[in-house]
Amino acid sequence: MSVRVGILGATGAVGQRLIELLEPHPEFEIATLTASESSAGERYRDAAKWRIEASIPEDVAEMTVVATEPEAVGDDVDLLFSSLPSDVGAAVEPAFCEAGYVVSSNSSNARMAADVPLVIPEVNADHVDLLEVQRDERGWDGALVKNPNCSTITFVPTLAALAEYGLERVHVATLQAVSGAGYDGVSSMEIIDNVVPHIGSEEEKLETESRKLLGSFDGAELSHHDLEVGASCNRIPTIDGHLENVWIETTEGLSVEEARDAMRTYPSADLPSSPEQLIRVFDDPDRPQPRLDRTLGDGMAISVGGVRESTFGLQYNCLAHNTIRGAAGASVLNGELLLRNGYL
Amino acid sequence: MSVRVGILGATGAVGQRLIELLEPHPEFEIATLTASESSAGERYRDAAKWRIEASIPEDVAEMTVVATEPEAVGDDVDLLFSSLPSDVGAAVEPAFCEAGYVVSSNSSNARMAADVPLVIPEVNADHVDLLEVQRDERGWDGALVKNPNCSTITFVPTLAALAEYGLERVHVATLQAVSGAGYDGVSSMEIIDNVVPHIGSEEEKLETESRKLLGSFDGAELSHHDLEVGASCNRIPTIDGHLENVWIETTEGLSVEEARDAMRTYPSADLPSSPEQLIRVFDDPDRPQPRLDRTLGDGMAISVGGVRESTFGLQYNCLAHNTIRGAAGASVLNGELLLRNGYL
Amino acid sequence: MSVRVGILGATGAVGQRLIELLEPHPEFEIATLTASESSAGERYRDAAKWRIEASIPEDVAEMTVVATEPEAVGDDVDLLFSSLPSDVGAAVEPAFCEAGYVVSSNSSNARMAADVPLVIPEVNADHVDLLEVQRDERGWDGALVKNPNCSTITFVPTLAALAEYGLERVHVATLQAVSGAGYDGVSSMEIIDNVVPHIGSEEEKLETESRKLLGSFDGAELSHHDLEVGASCNRIPTIDGHLENVWIETTEGLSVEEARDAMRTYPSADLPSSPEQLIRVFDDPDRPQPRLDRTLGDGMAISVGGVRESTFGLQYNCLAHNTIRGAAGASVLNGELLLRNGYL
Amino acid sequence: MSVRVGILGATGAVGQRLIELLEPHPEFEIATLTASESSAGERYRDAAKWRIEASIPEDVAEMTVVATEPEAVGDDVDLLFSSLPSDVGAAVEPAFCEAGYVVSSNSSNARMAADVPLVIPEVNADHVDLLEVQRDERGWDGALVKNPNCSTITFVPTLAALAEYGLERVHVATLQAVSGAGYDGVSSMEIIDNVVPHIGSEEEKLETESRKLLGSFDGAELSHHDLEVGASCNRIPTIDGHLENVWIETTEGLSVEEARDAMRTYPSADLPSSPEQLIRVFDDPDRPQPRLDRTLGDGMAISVGGVRESTFGLQYNCLAHNTIRGAAGASVLNGELLLRNGYL
Repeated sequence: MSVRVGILGATGAVGQRLIELLEPHPEFEIATLTASESSAGERYRDAAKWRIEASIPEDVAEMTVVATEPEAVGDDVDLLFSSLPSDVGAAVEPAFCEAGYVVSSNSSNARMAADVPLVIPEVNADHVDLLEVQRDERGWDGALVKNPNCSTITFVPTLAALAEYGLERVHVATLQAVSGAGYDGVSSMEIIDNVVPHIGSEEEKLETESRKLLGSFDGAELSHHDLEVGASCNRIPTIDGHLENVWIETTEGLSVEEARDAMRTYPSADLPSSPEQLIRVFDDPDRPQPRLDRTLGDGMAISVGGVRESTFGLQYNCLAHNTIRGAAGASVLNGELLLRNGYL
Repeated sequence: MSVRVGILGATGAVGQRLIELLEPHPEFEIATLTASESSAGERYRDAAKWRIEASIPEDVAEMTVVATEPEAVGDDVDLLFSSLPSDVGAAVEPAFCEAGYVVSSNSSNARMAADVPLVIPEVNADHVDLLEVQRDERGWDGALVKNPNCSTITFVPTLAALAEYGLERVHVATLQAVSGAGYDGVSSMEIIDNVVPHIGSEEEKLETESRKLLGSFDGAELSHHDLEVGASCNRIPTIDGHLENVWIETTEGLSVEEARDAMRTYPSADLPSSPEQLIRVFDDPDRPQPRLDRTLGDGMAISVGGVRESTFGLQYNCLAHNTIRGAAGASVLNGELLLRNGYL
Repeated sequence: MSVRVGILGATGAVGQRLIELLEPHPEFEIATLTASESSAGERYRDAAKWRIEASIPEDVAEMTVVATEPEAVGDDVDLLFSSLPSDVGAAVEPAFCEAGYVVSSNSSNARMAADVPLVIPEVNADHVDLLEVQRDERGWDGALVKNPNCSTITFVPTLAALAEYGLERVHVATLQAVSGAGYDGVSSMEIIDNVVPHIGSEEEKLETESRKLLGSFDGAELSHHDLEVGASCNRIPTIDGHLENVWIETTEGLSVEEARDAMRTYPSADLPSSPEQLIRVFDDPDRPQPRLDRTLGDGMAISVGGVRESTFGLQYNCLAHNTIRGAAGASVLNGELLLRNGYL
Repeated sequence: MSVRVGILGATGAVGQRLIELLEPHPEFEIATLTASESSAGERYRDAAKWRIEASIPEDVAEMTVVATEPEAVGDDVDLLFSSLPSDVGAAVEPAFCEAGYVVSSNSSNARMAADVPLVIPEVNADHVDLLEVQRDERGWDGALVKNPNCSTITFVPTLAALAEYGLERVHVATLQAVSGAGYDGVSSMEIIDNVVPHIGSEEEKLETESRKLLGSFDGAELSHHDLEVGASCNRIPTIDGHLENVWIETTEGLSVEEARDAMRTYPSADLPSSPEQLIRVFDDPDRPQPRLDRTLGDGMAISVGGVRESTFGLQYNCLAHNTIRGAAGASVLNGELLLRNGYL
């Protein structure tokens, strides 16, 4: 029996990926699509400018879009996925939770709040139980779970795989695809034959979200990890796939082979959207590459390559599909975790 | 009275930039163009596939290309610029020096040799006098001066400007343009909508050349600087302009404002091709950008932006035009230094 | 003595090119910059996001932007260049003309109006005298001159050069750069690794404007040329430079050599911004190419190549810089013509 | 029971696509891979630089590559697919046919030979029986079938769908992806932010192959269609997918609706690789677009959009995936036709 789900902010880039992932999903069934007030009442086909490679599913295309408010969504939905702009999300997500909805959100608001679980199921599934604290404190029937920023998701699983060696210092430089900024986020004149070496607040997200994700939850409180992360973020002319250069310094000795093994064998989660092998490690130092490797594991795998000794500790590159593993797929995965853990 | 110069390897990407820079040069006059044996005897117009934005100068187009060997070049030249592939340069540059030619070379061979000056005139002009040692040791009438790799040139001037604060550790991630690999170096299928996160030997060049450039020469021997540099190199879909993300840790306290001032006021060299202001520092954190800023100072300036406090020391981005400041212009500048210092 | 000029809509893509061209202009001096109401009162530096390769001129950067209305512009200006969006231009350009201003406009409104001269000085300078009719009919002290659409300007000079052979049928397919749509006109997600084979109303502009430009003016009325033009327009991932594939059928016999000669020798105009040679004809069938040839003649030349016999008549490719020759430069050139012909 | 097949020239761009399509094929089984002499003896994994998005199939990766000659291929193969360079194919394909092999070839040699069937199964399946003539004339036990050039395949099915209206004149301008030139065919410096408006011999292929494909075969001789085709070809910065602008003039009246219906209802072939719907017709004039639509029908469908009245007859755009529908998939489809028609 499938769970009826809704998508808050269904017409944007991440919303379209959510539809692409949810339409064939074995456990979820799309029941509601919301958009801004101005699109409410339109067919989805007309409200959204569909721009991903896959065709728009016909039955979704014919659905009528409703406004992004609890009254419009109605009772008939068990789980909401949110890909709202951060400011909109900050305003309406709590209202949905208050009204009893469970929300798996990709929106960047509230990710660092002390009682909001920020979760990558393969990394810190146990953090989801912070929801008990959240419900206590906020008096919600609903619940709010967040997935991290796309650039955070790309490198944190590799750190998690190496955590036993004592994470101390991490430098990370990102080469991020344009889809991460939404359909109209980066104009062509800004980025063809160019780089924009600045993405507002992105570096802070990598630096703080990673510490929360790698932190420990004792059933009552969440402690952040004390590793230090320094990030530098760049927008480059690729469509999909964030590539990151990582330097890592650990307290314990860590050889190239140990690092490769730890990443290759790092367990995936037993959830429908989790890839069989979470981290794929390449031998070829040219890989991973965004165009060639972003769709590994249906876009849910992390790719790693160029693991090598560095002037400072170890060095490697990692890659993930930013709108699948880094956004829509991350929210779906959290929805699956909520279902398995009995929060729906 | 102008100095007659030749270009070894005149048909490639850097060779074409050398022509573009030398043709209107106030002190140098192009007298000879060499290429591989198979092109010898052809007009330059036919031997080279001209692919830069500027038109090929008509008089150069009509010159006859000769083979890359001392006999073919003849006596009538005072200075040679070399943009030969590294393996070819390794074989023939010493033969030219042996035969009495002074060679300013962009070819990567021999850059780290103990008696070969590796020079950026604005950074370490005094190293050129290592030529005395070179001539003594090798018994050459000629001389061999090298400029560093394009990615090294981009960030070393910024380090030189901050050297008084005690350089300790530098992490640098590069986003390099395709022209750095030559005209056929990167195929379009490799790089459109993609990144190649590996450039053979490039990281080692940044890590070692920077220490030689920032080292000190006591008149007899060159000591390398003891800062530690860790590099990560990427090829991205830009035509010209290498952008680099830099993290720097110093022994002395260094504020953002001090770093900006030190870079902005770092002196240029009094040479025809050196820009009035060597390092341009942007306020806008979005800048520098390759397409917008690579031609500052006729392609000979270094641009810096996003100077900010980091989890580890300071952080900033820098940019230079890789085939002008980073290659052809670097060799021309060294030629100007050789002329001023009496080596011609 | 220089003519004081203003720019209506100075912050957009064409407005920035106008500043780049007017700042060093021998006859014109920038006196006023206008923008939308919301930017009025700001320094130009703050009102505009400067995004072209050249640096923003310092004195222009410090000018205060005024609203786009006659009262705000004041008396102290002899000529206005308009790069307003078409709907805005349609509303305010007549108000400026009514108020006595002479306007050289790149805005697409009113181009086909019977009493508005649509002019490329090298092609139909005599049409400018249609202004007498315009002033009579509209009772204006001012005047309104238009330049054609960027894609029209690219191929019409080549047709003008061949007109003596009897133009009958022309097919033209365009490959247009993103800058033609303005800074935010084409998102990066729309165009990286892609083509958009449709540009609203663009085909109609090529088909109708070309006939007006090639028509004849008898001092009272303008007759359009009766050639038939069929256009197909595409947006592609280039920054600047529209390339067009042209097939032409003529009533008189026309050989490849005759066509090449006619284009090569087609006279330029004796105006400051007109290039010495208007049409540059390449021998190499690979040329012209946008990146290599768009800046010929400081961006004001037309390039032609691949002139060859076709299944239907002759065939060739042509190229022009769309925001210089095709927009800002076209307006400046018309301003120069207005000055020479005594309309200021 | 599956047919054992070999791939001549298995390491190139089309060879890799052949492997991608044949590996999961219901009727064919990859038994042999050939490459140039220098790669013979290597594992496929080492001989080929795998560069398509899909992963290299593990069992194929471990196969040993043999030389491209009948002795090396052996008896154990029923059908050969050839993606050899044209000059190599011209030399060795006849030798394979002579030796008794049936060859389905994408190589451009011999396509216009009077006794070589040039086939798109959905368009002219009956031409395959020209093989009887071929075997008679050449005394071969084997057979040679060709598929047309990628740019020809893109527009010919649309012409076939309209043939009943009397095809008279066709103008076609192509915007072709870089993969059509092979992995190293177009350098990144040639094509980033650029167009190359010339592809050697490509225009002639469109103009002549289309007439052969649309011609009629009476059992003894093939007559070419007498429509006139004029082509203009461009290489642009897209990875995959050729887009074409088409103008068509017919002897019979043809409305937009009739053209759309004729294309939409044009029958597909009853072969495993033929898409359910051969020609997909879009309402949105912005479509088809290479990045969004090239994979329709697993890359085997033709997309059409922008069907509209033109100054000259009708006008529309069409698109096909050039290395699937236009090359590897075209050869596989012809292999399927050969199997069904009893030629294996």
